[in-house]
Parts: sequence; C-alpha cells; structure tokens
Amino acid sequence: MREVYVIGVGMTPFGKFPDRPYYDLGKEAVVKAVKDANVDKREIQAGYVGNVKAGMAPGQKVFKTLGMTGMQIVNVENACSSGQTALNLAYTAIASGQYDMVMAVGCENLTGGRTSGEALAPDQDDIEGILGNVMPAIYGMRAKKYMEVYGATPEDLALVAVKNHKHSSLNPYAQFRNLVTVEEVLASRMVAEPFTLLQCCPIADGAAAAVVCSKEKMQQLGAKGVKINASILVSGLFKNQSSDLTVPEITQRASRLAYEMSGIGPEDINMVECHDAFTIAEFLYYETLGFCRKGEAASFIRSGAAELGGKHVFSVRGGLLCMGHPLGATGVAQTVEAVWQLRGQAGDRQIQGAKTAMIHITGGGVAGMDNAACGVHIFTV
Amino acid sequence: MREVYVIGVGMTPFGKFPDRPYYDLGKEAVVKAVKDANVDKREIQAGYVGNVKAGMAPGQKVFKTLGMTGMQIVNVENACSSGQTALNLAYTAIASGQYDMVMAVGCENLTGGRTSGEALAPDQDDIEGILGNVMPAIYGMRAKKYMEVYGATPEDLALVAVKNHKHSSLNPYAQFRNLVTVEEVLASRMVAEPFTLLQCCPIADGAAAAVVCSKEKMQQLGAKGVKINASILVSGLFKNQSSDLTVPEITQRASRLAYEMSGIGPEDINMVECHDAFTIAEFLYYETLGFCRKGEAASFIRSGAAELGGKHVFSVRGGLLCMGHPLGATGVAQTVEAVWQLRGQAGDRQIQGAKTAMIHITGGGVAGMDNAACGVHIFTV
Repeated sequence: MREVYVIGVGMTPFGKFPDRPYYDLGKEAVVKAVKDANVDKREIQAGYVGNVKAGMAPGQKVFKTLGMTGMQIVNVENACSSGQTALNLAYTAIASGQYDMVMAVGCENLTGGRTSGEALAPDQDDIEGILGNVMPAIYGMRAKKYMEVYGATPEDLALVAVKNHKHSSLNPYAQFRNLVTVEEVLASRMVAEPFTLLQCCPIADGAAAAVVCSKEKMQQLGAKGVKINASILVSGLFKNQSSDLTVPEITQRASRLAYEMSGIGPEDINMVECHDAFTIAEFLYYETLGFCRKGEAASFIRSGAAELGGKHVFSVRGGLLCMGHPLGATGVAQTVEAVWQLRGQAGDRQIQGAKTAMIHITGGGVAGMDNAACGVHIFTV
Repeated sequence: MREVYVIGVGMTPFGKFPDRPYYDLGKEAVVKAVKDANVDKREIQAGYVGNVKAGMAPGQKVFKTLGMTGMQIVNVENACSSGQTALNLAYTAIASGQYDMVMAVGCENLTGGRTSGEALAPDQDDIEGILGNVMPAIYGMRAKKYMEVYGATPEDLALVAVKNHKHSSLNPYAQFRNLVTVEEVLASRMVAEPFTLLQCCPIADGAAAAVVCSKEKMQQLGAKGVKINASILVSGLFKNQSSDLTVPEITQRASRLAYEMSGIGPEDINMVECHDAFTIAEFLYYETLGFCRKGEAASFIRSGAAELGGKHVFSVRGGLLCMGHPLGATGVAQTVEAVWQLRGQAGDRQIQGAKTAMIHITGGGVAGMDNAACGVHIFTV
C-alpha cells in the first residue's frame, strides 16, 4: 500500500442554516479545499461523500455545479461515522493505487425543512428507540454507571463542557462561542439524567472537504501534505449481554488497530478530536483511547492535560458539544481541524508544536449499547 | 491489482413484500450467498451494502442478526446504481489487496409502510421533478426523439416487453411471470407517451448478495469462481445542452472503459443485463453498448439476437421490466444472474455455453437528461 497525504482542506462554519441546502454547504467546502490544495479541480479522480439525511445521489449534487463531473462518486452512509467512512474510502483508493488524487467530503443539513425532532426520530421499526432508548438515554446509562463505579461527580462531567466551550470561543467555525461555568452547565435544563442541555451536543448544518493524494502525486505538485498514518473503519459487535457500559468496545478495537497500523501510541499524540456527543463520552474516550487509566478521567481533565496548553488536547475545535454535529460532515471536519493544527494554521486555538493528531468517531446506537461503526485516523506532519 | 472472483451468490425473489423489512430480505440473500460459496461467514472481512430508502446503517442491520459483526461495513447510495456501486467497492477492496474475501449486498423495500408514489417522489428541491420531469417523462422524450429520427414504431418498442416477459416466464425469482403480446403491451394504460404501463419497470422489494474474493483465496478454498474482468463506476457529465437524447453518454463512456479494462468486446459477450427501466432504454443500450449500429435496434430485436437462443441475450432474467426494480438490490441481482448463467445453473432460462456476461446500470436522472452514476461489470468463466 502507498503512503497517503491530505494536501488541502476546507469547511463551512457549523451552525443552523435552514436555508442552505446540503449541496450548497458541500460546494463551499469543496471549493475551499481545492483552492487550499492549489490543484486543478479537473485532476480530482473520485469523490467519496458522507451524508445521512439527504435524498438520492447527494455527492453528484455537490460536484456537478462545480463542473467536477464524470469522475467516480460514491455516497456513503454510516450514521455519525459517515464522514470518516468517506475518508477511509478515499484513503483506500489512494493507498491501493486505484487513483492518485481524490476527495473526501461530508455535508449535512439537519435544520432545513423539518424540526430536529423529525430529523433524528427513531426509525419506525426501531422498537428500542421508540420506547425511549435514544442517544441521550443510552449515554445517560453509561454516565450513571460510570459515576457509580468510579465515583465521578456531576461537576466532573460538567468540566468537559466548560473546557470545550473555552476551546470553541477561539474557533470562528464553531456554532457556540460563549464561555460557560460549571454552575451554568449544571443549571441548564435537564435532558436525560445526568445530562443537562449543555452536556449534549446539538445538531447543526455544515460541510467539510479534504483533498487526498499519493506521496508521488504530492511531490509532483510540489505540495506539502499531512500524512495519514492510520485509517481504520470497523462495525460494532452488537453483543450487549456481558459488556461493561463504561468500556466502548468498538472504540477500543478500532483504536488498537490504528495504533498498530501507525506504530504510534497515545503518548505521541498531541491532539484528539473524539466523539464527544455527551460529556461522559469524552471521559470514556480519555480512558479507552489510552490517555489515562480506567476511572481516572476526572483527574485527567482536572490536571489540564486535555485543555489547550496540555499534553493531549481533546476537542480543540470545541468538539461536537460546541461545533454541533451535522452527521455526515463531522468526520471530515475533524480531519480539517487536524490538518490545520499540524500545519500551524489554527489561529488563536493553535496547539504549539503539534506533530501528531488522532480523530475518532462512532456512529449509530442501533440495538442498544454497541455502536454500528467506528472510525479512527491518525495524522502526522 | 489482483484478480477478483465471485464465489457465491444468493437472492430473494423480487416482488411486493410490504411486510418484510429490507434487512430481513438482505439477511436471506446473505445466508444464501455464504452457503453457496461454502465458506465460514466469520471469514468475510467487509460488507459493502447498496440501499437507497432505508434509515441509518442498513448494512449493520442486515449483518448483525447473522453474527457477522465487527468487520468493516460501508453503506453506499448511488440511486439505481447503488448495487453495482457496492460491487465496485467490493472489487476494489479485493483487487487492491486490502481484503481477501468480502461481500457485496443490495437490499431494498419500496412497498412497506408507504405508497410507491411516496417512495419515489422527487426531492422537495428537485424543481424539474416537481414540474413533471420524472423518469417516465425523461425516457418518454428519449423514445419520441428516437422514433422520430430512426423511424421506430410503438410495435418495435413493445417487442422489448414481449421478449422480457418471455424470459421472466422461465424465472422463478421474477415479479411477473406472465407472457404478453405486442397488442396487450400497447393496450395497457398510458403512463407517459409513448409508454404504456407494460413498458415501464415496476418497483419491487428484494435483496441479493455476492461473496467476492481474490484468486489466491479462491484457490485456497478449492472454489471455482466467476472472474470479474471489468469493474467500472463513473458519474454523469451533467451537460445537456448539446447532447443527443438518443445517446446515453454515461453508458457510452462507462462501457468503453469496461471494454478497455477487460480486453473484451461486445462480439464476445453472450448475455447482457442492462438498465431496461423502460422499453426504449433497452433499444438505446443495444446500440450504445455496441451490439448493433445506431438506429438498428428494431432490426436487432426482430432478428432474435437479443432473445434466449440468440447471440447476445439481453435481460434473460426478465430485466427490470419483469423483475421489478428494488433500487439498491438490482445491481447485485444482475450479478447473481450473470454468475448463475456462467455456471450453467440458470435452469429453464439457461443460455447454452455462456462464457461471458456484462451487467450495466445507470442511476439518477438528476438535472435532466444525464445520469448521476453508471456501473458496468464484465464477468467470464
């Protein structure tokens, strides 16, 4: 397999843009990424497009108005992991030698033409979901179990929201840029115990894109890219009976594969964009991704390690909690942040000397506690 | 790139099964294909799943109840080409050496829980579709133009429906198994001039699956597979202004790439499953795929060449016209037919001595006359 690099990225701000269709958002991201890569758009040989909620052939609608036609376009869907699924296919197309330069795109509009409730309502045959086992409830059970076993407090969990808001206040692409206190987080309205509103990621509209190419192509272009050292996509085991709610098995498995593929370990990683859909999630990922030991998430965040200036900065763009989560777009937006940070282009939220980044996402709570898909990518510069 | 083979296939009958969810249909197809391949299902390393209309993570719902969990699963959507898109990704995963054995699956339920009108209604921002430029109208314009330029008659077009019904009468998997006459075709109710009902493919529910592996893996298993000589997936050019309505450009381009990739030409091909969504489509594909010259489709079908017993049998399973068209499933079902025919397992509709098969599909009439995606695969035994 060949070495694979990201040589250009672009994204829209994330927020609520009910009047901008997904393809309009996608187009803006593609134009920015192509410009950033400084390549002729006609040299892009394939497009892998993550989207969950649009109609048929969404990728074609993004590319056609830009005149990027005739190439291979594959629309992919893997719930919240759709964006990293697109990136994984782009990686594979380059690593295998099938193509020399392709794009991964994620785009989603969740607010246009319907309410958020409609956009994310359970399928009509999802009995568990209809009975109330939706995402806030699933993560709520994880949180209650974690608090019971490891003694974490509501204040501990709230620190994740406080930190991520601090980060997002420095990010012009974030949906929420206000600072919040532990008291404000805990005083916001209850959604699903123990989560108050500010501990749940909001929906959003947005798009992101990345130009991915081979080492040979990059050298030929005289470009300087960010290397993809690991690209992992796996599905869940869907076995709940004996599982520990505080150990996200799919993340454990995917991250181990990523560490193995890259030869890189958590000690080398300067920044992580993880699937912080709820505050507890970031706690579980500190531990499961190997950044601290089981049960030590509260001390990890209290130490400042996960905050800008710390050793392993989590959610430096503001995470899902402050960016919002436009399903298909998030995985590619995490990629954009990794590339900006590793290039030293992240402005006020720049992690000084960042050399290695990890992005992680899980998608789909189908059938209870396990997840449908998990993506993990590791980048170096 | 490595040689790629199909070593097992399976499918459900196609028809209207409103009470069988897509994942139930998909499960039946997967079980049959794994059994046909005579492999341990735990050896399948990835699943590529074509589906258009289901909710999130459809592939995971198909595989999880079979205990086929933890592997890479990618859900793909490319309108009518979704099934061949899944096959193309499966091909690439094997050819590149990423995996040794994977599955391509297509599954769709279009009748359950909604009317066919709802299932296929234009997107709310598809202005052309809302104004009436839907599939029957688009193909209707192609037909009117073809008839005007090349002098084909309504009777000529009706011959496609008569032939495909003759074929489907021999296929226990077909939705419609009745014989029809030219008079009956022309006397059925008008849908969009010049198409009467029997000249339009119906919707359907159904699923199909194929086990795809490397030559090395096949030999290790002692299996005898059908080789994939070409695997092409391209998107449309979306340029209508100067195009000839009687030349489907996307098919021309995709088939040329497939002929080039395989070193096989139309003269060598014994059977073709094409995208016969309407009778005119099969006419246009006789010509565009290179089986007869421009304007000669009527004489081609009248010669008997396209019928069972002829030199290049088109739509031997009954085509979309008689199988029906469960969007995500069709491309994989075409694969199943090709494999059965090349193995000599097609029963009453067996093409004697079939050695080479082509399957072709186009998807999405977005933005008028050009198509969003086209898949072409060529198989040999």
